[in-house]
Amino acid sequence: MPYIRETIITTVDSSGKVHIAPIGIIAERDGWVIAPFRPSITLDNLADTPFAVASYTDDVRIFAGCLTGRKDWPTVPVKGFPVPRLEAALAHSALEVTSVTDDEMRPRHHCRIVGEATHAPFTGFNRAKAAVLELAILVSRLDMLPREKIEAEIAYLAIAIEKTAGAEEKEAWGWLMERVTRHFRRKV
Amino acid sequence: MPYIRETIITTVDSSGKVHIAPIGIIAERDGWVIAPFRPSITLDNLADTPFAVASYTDDVRIFAGCLTGRKDWPTVPVKGFPVPRLEAALAHSALEVTSVTDDEMRPRHHCRIVGEATHAPFTGFNRAKAAVLELAILVSRLDMLPREKIEAEIAYLAIAIEKTAGAEEKEAWGWLMERVTRHFRRKV
Repeated sequence: MPYIRETIITTVDSSGKVHIAPIGIIAERDGWVIAPFRPSITLDNLADTPFAVASYTDDVRIFAGCLTGRKDWPTVPVKGFPVPRLEAALAHSALEVTSVTDDEMRPRHHCRIVGEATHAPFTGFNRAKAAVLELAILVSRLDMLPREKIEAEIAYLAIAIEKTAGAEEKEAWGWLMERVTRHFRRKV
Repeated sequence: MPYIRETIITTVDSSGKVHIAPIGIIAERDGWVIAPFRPSITLDNLADTPFAVASYTDDVRIFAGCLTGRKDWPTVPVKGFPVPRLEAALAHSALEVTSVTDDEMRPRHHCRIVGEATHAPFTGFNRAKAAVLELAILVSRLDMLPREKIEAEIAYLAIAIEKTAGAEEKEAWGWLMERVTRHFRRKV
């Protein structure tokens, strides 16, 4: 399977209203594929305005926040481009949809890079950030997984949180764990 | 526990010979702590020359390589500083040791940042990179862990490799898995 970058994708509707969503973009030759689920606002927006920005951020609160109803992350305009980027982006790629391969589940939007910029330095890997990202993916699949598997994965990921998290990672982890707790409570 | 950045630390001996080592640096007020194991070349070098560079790279081959005998990663000089940085650094911090708290296992070198620079854009999280980093940590602890635990963790981490790795991540994963295989063969 091809390389996947975990990004925050911004798109706009015909009125210019911004939508942000955590989406893994898929490497393809010299471009990237955005494959939003059907139905989704990102999918509708790309039909209206075939441009997107992939923001590369290491603030995992944004990934966890988007999954837990906290979607109000500041964006800033990208000069000469119809879609803004995340303010928290360390770097971004401005993307133009060049073609769409239809799919029942996830239509593949093939994109070319029309602009890129760096905004802030990368400050190194952090195991807790990676653990939050994995928990976010787990939270997006709670209904598909048995309780034992969810609990075992959380126990494993929690080690990196205990050992290496800062305040932001703990906050993001907390938001996701609330969601897990609520899921189990509903099931009982 | 405090925030930890996973970095590649460069140091030099009194003749200027460069040593590189993957080390997690520990946040402390407005500085960072380097706590190299006793004995280690990094520890000796810091006694000679109390300066280090923390290179922030997302090339996981360097982390995996340093653990598997592949230590020859290019460095480039940092202007006005006695220690070079990794060429592959997306950014770096130049660190000066301001004091040392002795410890039987890992003497804590308290450092202040004396310079920082950005060299290349961050291109987003990648789950396979995080999985390689976790496998690298696992490989550094093979002798302390039961076989079942090692195998269970590898089975979990392998999912992200299958789904999201590029060529570099697969190569790094392969180097580490050779080490795991050799470890188990020796044990039988």
